[in-house]
Amino acid sequence: MAGTTDTLLVVGSIAFDDIDLPSGEYRNVVGGSATYASLAASPFMRGGAVRMVGVVGSDFPRDTLVELERRGIGVTGIEHAAERTFRWHGRYSTDLASRTTIDTQLNVFASFSPKISALERNCTFVFLGNIHPELQVEVVEQVPRRKFIAADTMNFWIEREPSSLARMLRCVDLLIVNDEEARALSGIDNLVRAAADIRRRGPKTLVIKRGEFGALLFDEAGTFFAPGYPLEEVLDPTGAGDSFAGGLMGYLTSRGEATPWVVRKAMFFASSLGSFCVEGVGPARLLAIGHSEIAARIAAFARLVDYGGELHFSHS
Amino acid sequence: MAGTTDTLLVVGSIAFDDIDLPSGEYRNVVGGSATYASLAASPFMRGGAVRMVGVVGSDFPRDTLVELERRGIGVTGIEHAAERTFRWHGRYSTDLASRTTIDTQLNVFASFSPKISALERNCTFVFLGNIHPELQVEVVEQVPRRKFIAADTMNFWIEREPSSLARMLRCVDLLIVNDEEARALSGIDNLVRAAADIRRRGPKTLVIKRGEFGALLFDEAGTFFAPGYPLEEVLDPTGAGDSFAGGLMGYLTSRGEATPWVVRKAMFFASSLGSFCVEGVGPARLLAIGHSEIAARIAAFARLVDYGGELHFSHS
Repeated sequence: MAGTTDTLLVVGSIAFDDIDLPSGEYRNVVGGSATYASLAASPFMRGGAVRMVGVVGSDFPRDTLVELERRGIGVTGIEHAAERTFRWHGRYSTDLASRTTIDTQLNVFASFSPKISALERNCTFVFLGNIHPELQVEVVEQVPRRKFIAADTMNFWIEREPSSLARMLRCVDLLIVNDEEARALSGIDNLVRAAADIRRRGPKTLVIKRGEFGALLFDEAGTFFAPGYPLEEVLDPTGAGDSFAGGLMGYLTSRGEATPWVVRKAMFFASSLGSFCVEGVGPARLLAIGHSEIAARIAAFARLVDYGGELHFSHS
Repeated sequence: MAGTTDTLLVVGSIAFDDIDLPSGEYRNVVGGSATYASLAASPFMRGGAVRMVGVVGSDFPRDTLVELERRGIGVTGIEHAAERTFRWHGRYSTDLASRTTIDTQLNVFASFSPKISALERNCTFVFLGNIHPELQVEVVEQVPRRKFIAADTMNFWIEREPSSLARMLRCVDLLIVNDEEARALSGIDNLVRAAADIRRRGPKTLVIKRGEFGALLFDEAGTFFAPGYPLEEVLDPTGAGDSFAGGLMGYLTSRGEATPWVVRKAMFFASSLGSFCVEGVGPARLLAIGHSEIAARIAAFARLVDYGGELHFSHS
């Protein structure tokens, strides 16, 4: 989609994942929140309009960076460190509904502090993947032309860094979390009331992801719901949440605005990219996806929610 | 809603429920699938156009039947037996997400065989609540002017009466089950493939309920999704599934047809009535609900899914 001069900065982890799935054990799969979010955002943008910031180790293959570039992702902002790349090992349950972390090796990610260089400083839309909330705040301060900032977080920061997280919430426009995180952050079990509480802490717009079931949006215009796409086969949920966020931010950046109507449409692009992600192991499907496939899935989404327009109750 | 001469027959259980909720323990609450479904259907119909068939014992209060009549439900088809009314005792988990049955006393329900008298024989729409599939088939055969038949079932019959269930599936237009039942019935974990399997066994239309998350519809026109209504407070899930079915069938009967577009709209009325049900203990909220409240919730549903019309992906 052309037409705007807006660009999207994506900051987050870049990783090697070992993924134990019911279908098999996969090793050294390229992953990380920045990778998934950038790949999911890229179909909406002209080349170089998604700019990725993160850190890789000396073991990270140049070919992978070339592959990301081929998808139109600007990779010159990625830092190269001497140690090994961040590694994660996780195992999924047989129904893919839950996972346990077997091992995490932070490596280069342990001392990561995002350095925003000239090209990235000019970005107007920002997605802050799940990193330390202090670092998320530092990124925001380094992007003077920012128009719309979105962030993810996780229970680890909610429990251990509440004051940093509170500062982060005050400087973002949109928070994207899952239902469990929304409950932990607010201390409220009911999601409608949890959402109201979180929005009072900063983000005017809140998205609560519910995995395969879809996602809720809470903003100044009210509450909105976009379903998950009913898939015939799910291979690997890894990266689905980041792909959702990337699809959402990619669409918003391509439109150059984040009004309630645009954000509502963006929810379907988010859900579409999340649905593609889980159809392959790691980012395989996102790397292969074509524009016509995206157009077809968006059309299928439109049919999935089309009830023919009018809905009202009248009794006589 | 006036305009059609169609009438709805609702067949199922009528019960006294003991309900242990996080908010308290409630005793002798009137319940049963026929009660919830009839109450949920009644707002769409003129007086007497919903006709309830079931059995009550000598302990069932006349006042309750009067209350049902006051909601426009025809109760003359309800059989009165000498024993005690069917009783169920269940306990919910603190988050209301699961429940265990503490006690079931079939009483009059043990020998229940629905007798369809003259008024009920003329009904054109039928909802078969969760009773023995043999009895469900017998009801269908007693309603010669039938236009559209919907049925519910449960894991108990799926496991123990597969051949009766197979016959039942061949004589209904719509099956309404939850996701767990759809998986048990088809033996397929993935819901999209489970739905295709179930539809091959008889019902051209299938609704899979997913509790608070919403419900999926599979029919000749494709796949459709209607969300659950995001409530600030949920008191008691008892009867929500039957209220969903009742709301759906009430709307269809009021329209006098069940085309794919009408069924899609009906999904929102179903979800609305299900959402009202859980706001009160037992059928309390359904008994109190006014037309303006239903109209307001339907309008809120329309906003919940309104993304402004156009949704397409174009890339340049």
